[in-house]
Amino acid sequence: MRKSIAVDMDGVIADEETQLLTWYEKHYGVKIHPHELIGRKEEDVVPERDAYNKFSATPGYFRTTPVMPGAIEAVKKLMENYDVYIVSAAMQYPHSLPEKLGWLNEHFPFISWRNIIFCGDKSIIGTDYMIDDHIKNLDFFKGKTIMFNAFHNVSFNHHQRVNNWDEVLGLMAGV
Amino acid sequence: MRKSIAVDMDGVIADEETQLLTWYEKHYGVKIHPHELIGRKEEDVVPERDAYNKFSATPGYFRTTPVMPGAIEAVKKLMENYDVYIVSAAMQYPHSLPEKLGWLNEHFPFISWRNIIFCGDKSIIGTDYMIDDHIKNLDFFKGKTIMFNAFHNVSFNHHQRVNNWDEVLGLMAGV
Repeated sequence: MRKSIAVDMDGVIADEETQLLTWYEKHYGVKIHPHELIGRKEEDVVPERDAYNKFSATPGYFRTTPVMPGAIEAVKKLMENYDVYIVSAAMQYPHSLPEKLGWLNEHFPFISWRNIIFCGDKSIIGTDYMIDDHIKNLDFFKGKTIMFNAFHNVSFNHHQRVNNWDEVLGLMAGV
Repeated sequence: MRKSIAVDMDGVIADEETQLLTWYEKHYGVKIHPHELIGRKEEDVVPERDAYNKFSATPGYFRTTPVMPGAIEAVKKLMENYDVYIVSAAMQYPHSLPEKLGWLNEHFPFISWRNIIFCGDKSIIGTDYMIDDHIKNLDFFKGKTIMFNAFHNVSFNHHQRVNNWDEVLGLMAGV
């Protein structure tokens, strides 16, 4: 039987870090280099603590997030051998639901609506694998976890880390 | 540890049958009594096979569905002893996402966004229990299944049937 993989959106197939820094520069006039973020907590990603929440509540923020490099080709490749589900904790920002669906339809049109899940808490997701950047999601997952590298997870090493989509493909080809 | 329950929306906490018959009478001028539906397949629920799809695609259809009798009190009661998640296969109709969220916020404001899941296929839901009216969802669920009575499932007896929310409470109090 084919195994199933839950793939997160923000920080995994969507390049949330680039989007955040782009919007931050646009709205606050300050350019932050990605290297400066490494090891910061999410709430300290930029000096203004409410900036991320404000952006997340702004129409267009999720819809215009760039695609994570290599994600489209890698997800297509994974789908040859796995049932791939896109699982996004989108429920906190209701306006993001149609934006995220529009984003998926634009960039990942080969993903069926049957394989998309928008949720709050991810603890009830019962796939075999989960690829996510947040330990709050990975820690409560019952299957095999894969932690996609992000500035806020560099100090955690209790999940299998992958640094990019090439590493995901290498890992999943060997299991 | 508290057990978790996935509770379906349409046909379980939302009275989809009443909504369908109300809209059918309004748009087609024909009154169908609920008793006439018993044993029909979903696609034969009304003579015009595309009526349900047309209604489902119409803004306002999901948002104005009446609440299933007893559902609000029963879900509150279940939440005393279980982690209750609302799991709706909403992804086929993207416009229904904000409508269903608005409906939940109006009628079930005590359900946190953390406990709401909108999906396509429900096979990856990993709760301990699932209360649903569709065998297509129950048949692929790995936990304990509870089939909420509906006209289209009367001929299936391979899941525990409940006829109303009182019976759900009676059943879950005894497990």
